Amino acid sequence: MPSLLHHPLDPASRLIRLMCAEYGVPLDMEEIKPWLRTPELLEVNPAATLPILIDDNDQSVIGLLANIHTIEALYAPSAVAGLMPDDAIVRAEMWRLIEWVISKLNDEVTRYVLEEKIVKRDHRGATPDPAVLRVAKANLNEHMLYFNWLFANRSWLTGDDMTLADFALAAHLSTLDYLGDIDWGKAGETRDWYSRIKSRPAFRTLLNDRVLAMPPHQGYADLDF
Amino acid sequence: MPSLLHHPLDPASRLIRLMCAEYGVPLDMEEIKPWLRTPELLEVNPAATLPILIDDNDQSVIGLLANIHTIEALYAPSAVAGLMPDDAIVRAEMWRLIEWVISKLNDEVTRYVLEEKIVKRDHRGATPDPAVLRVAKANLNEHMLYFNWLFANRSWLTGDDMTLADFALAAHLSTLDYLGDIDWGKAGETRDWYSRIKSRPAFRTLLNDRVLAMPPHQGYADLDF
Repeated sequence: MPSLLHHPLDPASRLIRLMCAEYGVPLDMEEIKPWLRTPELLEVNPAATLPILIDDNDQSVIGLLANIHTIEALYAPSAVAGLMPDDAIVRAEMWRLIEWVISKLNDEVTRYVLEEKIVKRDHRGATPDPAVLRVAKANLNEHMLYFNWLFANRSWLTGDDMTLADFALAAHLSTLDYLGDIDWGKAGETRDWYSRIKSRPAFRTLLNDRVLAMPPHQGYADLDF
Repeated sequence: MPSLLHHPLDPASRLIRLMCAEYGVPLDMEEIKPWLRTPELLEVNPAATLPILIDDNDQSVIGLLANIHTIEALYAPSAVAGLMPDDAIVRAEMWRLIEWVISKLNDEVTRYVLEEKIVKRDHRGATPDPAVLRVAKANLNEHMLYFNWLFANRSWLTGDDMTLADFALAAHLSTLDYLGDIDWGKAGETRDWYSRIKSRPAFRTLLNDRVLAMPPHQGYADLDF
């Protein structure tokens, strides 16, 4: 069975866990804290990023893009629809939105929230900087308006069908939801979409996540949130 | 002929231009300044990022990942070796290094240099902040040590053959070289690799780039630099 080095609140790890669960790939999970930059982690991945998949031949697949492509190549079902649309233009739209989530949403929201709420507390014993969290929250509001607008016109993030872009967004929003940073009362169309994706069997593993001494925000694991 | 909205010093645009030149895809080039966030740009791409490819049916392919995958799907040669390795493990290594370049190198070096030297000057008439440029330079030195180490053991970034990861790194280093931010005297193995990739026909279009009132650093276009 392949092993996945991950952190429960790392959105890139969550995206790969969702993808593997959807494709029925069993994973041996190993939790690590990448910000500690241990010599063991740096030897495998000098960038100290997650996720890292280690296959049965002890070969490592490192980082989000490498894992997306490797899992798609090795495990995507041939008989039923996978997470990558066949049509070139729809696939381009999927990659546009994946890039939106993993670059723009991450840079403007998720990485700040994780740094302030998780890394700082664990690594340096410091407390979150409220000014940084305020900026992240204001940025998140702008992103939610955009997602609401998209979901007012589409069933799924890319269009008519669920794709990997939905998992990318769900990975980030579920991390933020764990930490209590999403105001679902204002989330409108995005809330309806999240309710649908949260009910999928692939999502169950994420809903059981618990970080030591930091329980999830109320409603995190409820399908009726 | 497809159009490419690009900026000459945007590394993501450069990567797609290299890919198209290598695959023999002619492009109608249209230069824009994404940081101006014009209504015309925001209407096509609310993220205001480049590159944007507009095909003959007026459909847009937006952002780096969407363009990489669309161009690979539509234009990769079937008879000769393309830029994506066949072997799954080599391909995973290619994506690891693409992610290194477009996320880590970009976040730690290229985006700061471009913001300080290009955007600030053009957009706000301000001058570069020397403290920011010093940090970017120190970060670049660390990256160069890592690339030197890789190239001491490999002919190309991913291994024995040139891949898209080489174009990703060349796109960033050529932008930094245009701006005079690379000390080739200290670049060792990376210099030898850059000399090889710079001689490829696909690279010619980049070497002719000129930004108004900002000529390239000496040696930028010389194959014997």
